[in-house]
Amino acid sequence: MDVGRRIEAVLDVAVSHAEAPGAPPLLAEAIRYSVFPGGHRIRPRLCLAVARACGDDDPAASDAAAAAIELLHCASLVHDDLPCFDDAPMRRQKPSVHAAFGVPLAVLTGDALIVAAFETLARGAARSPGRLAALVGLVARAVGSPSGIVAGQAWESEPHVDLVEYQQAKTGALFAAATVAGAAAAGAAPLPWRLLGECLGEAYQVADDLRDVACRQEEIGKPAGRDATLGRPNAAALLGMGGALERLRRLTREAVEVIPDCSGQAVMRAEIEAQTRLFLPASLREAA
Amino acid sequence: MDVGRRIEAVLDVAVSHAEAPGAPPLLAEAIRYSVFPGGHRIRPRLCLAVARACGDDDPAASDAAAAAIELLHCASLVHDDLPCFDDAPMRRQKPSVHAAFGVPLAVLTGDALIVAAFETLARGAARSPGRLAALVGLVARAVGSPSGIVAGQAWESEPHVDLVEYQQAKTGALFAAATVAGAAAAGAAPLPWRLLGECLGEAYQVADDLRDVACRQEEIGKPAGRDATLGRPNAAALLGMGGALERLRRLTREAVEVIPDCSGQAVMRAEIEAQTRLFLPASLREAA
Repeated sequence: MDVGRRIEAVLDVAVSHAEAPGAPPLLAEAIRYSVFPGGHRIRPRLCLAVARACGDDDPAASDAAAAAIELLHCASLVHDDLPCFDDAPMRRQKPSVHAAFGVPLAVLTGDALIVAAFETLARGAARSPGRLAALVGLVARAVGSPSGIVAGQAWESEPHVDLVEYQQAKTGALFAAATVAGAAAAGAAPLPWRLLGECLGEAYQVADDLRDVACRQEEIGKPAGRDATLGRPNAAALLGMGGALERLRRLTREAVEVIPDCSGQAVMRAEIEAQTRLFLPASLREAA
Repeated sequence: MDVGRRIEAVLDVAVSHAEAPGAPPLLAEAIRYSVFPGGHRIRPRLCLAVARACGDDDPAASDAAAAAIELLHCASLVHDDLPCFDDAPMRRQKPSVHAAFGVPLAVLTGDALIVAAFETLARGAARSPGRLAALVGLVARAVGSPSGIVAGQAWESEPHVDLVEYQQAKTGALFAAATVAGAAAAGAAPLPWRLLGECLGEAYQVADDLRDVACRQEEIGKPAGRDATLGRPNAAALLGMGGALERLRRLTREAVEVIPDCSGQAVMRAEIEAQTRLFLPASLREAA
């Protein structure tokens, strides 16, 4: 099966469990709304690419890892868009979850997605119970405190922000989880894959900063110029467009260089190069 | 070690991981604030009581199950107290988390506690990987959609509420998880223990309704009379004080009767009777 269809299929199964009979109808609707249609599914694609590079000997475990990471990404979007954080009216070309369903259901949708991510891991790793503890631990570390995406968001509530911790936690952590969980799902040592995820996470953050500064709302599916409005650090604002594009090129080269030795290394290189091109919208791809 | 001290110790370890170097200081403070000092720790006590009744052959797994359930209970209190739900200013005799730390950190504290619960399970069940999938699945089911505490809270956003689903999900689910997870942590079949948890969850809900109607704020550590204010169903309002107390007595008797056959059955009976007495504050205990 094509990898894009494989990801949509496992996400559909995960969401179906949350919609089972007895679920409050609006919550079930909001959960599906927050997951479909998705963006580029960059993190689960990365997770599955690493699993394949490591042999992918238990596809159900790899699928579960990829789905869990995307569900957690969706959860973070729903909560970050809340009025108490970014107050974002739009996401993925449609009203954000709180704009469509109200704040209470948006809080609960994020909560339910976090829980569904771990439930998906438990269900998918049933045939490899020895890998489940590593998967739950690696994924949880990427999301919680001290250094996951929740901690990254919490830095915005601190009077003094540690910028390195902030960006690494807010974006890097889930990319790093995508690579290490992909390896762990395939029974490989996860740690050698962390650096690749961290490079790609940083590259994605720079690309996101470029989009925020240089693109119109219609192209990126959410309001542009939010970092300036919210007073958040932005690489394109700090380094200029040229400097930020150069940094993105350097991080992409680094990512390709740090791919660990593995049977699928050449395929992996091509895949990383293709995926990083998707980080930027069409209007910026030429310049990169 | 005394069971109360054992529970505080495992919760302290779980919270310490979330406070590790690199954590945003206010988030770390809010996480600890939301877990300590606790209430009666009824759910983790129940979980450990069932684990003991089933042999408790891997105390680290039982501890992890008990801690995970209490962390999830704390998460639900933090999110339920938010202005968009109950808007509760007080909890456990002190300002609620959003009152003390603001809404953004309260949302993130709840998120971090949910993640910490699953991380605690993964860490604690390292010696019994075969039990981890069951534990994660049982605990996740008690919290997420379709029938966990998040779904219970979501029923309050529906135009038509299914009262049975609502109360079972909002209170019963986590009590049921406490019993089944205690059994699973000890390597026993979890399902026979579900009915005990459900009975106790329903009994606790009736007791909570009685407290809400009959007690002053100082005695229960949170505002009284909230159900009437928020238009929520309340057994004491529906059945009268006498009717609700009679229902509580009946549910407590039922709970003792449905304890499955096990080596520690007699101890378990005494423990259930002692614990259910704690459901009511002193001023109502005489009447019960």
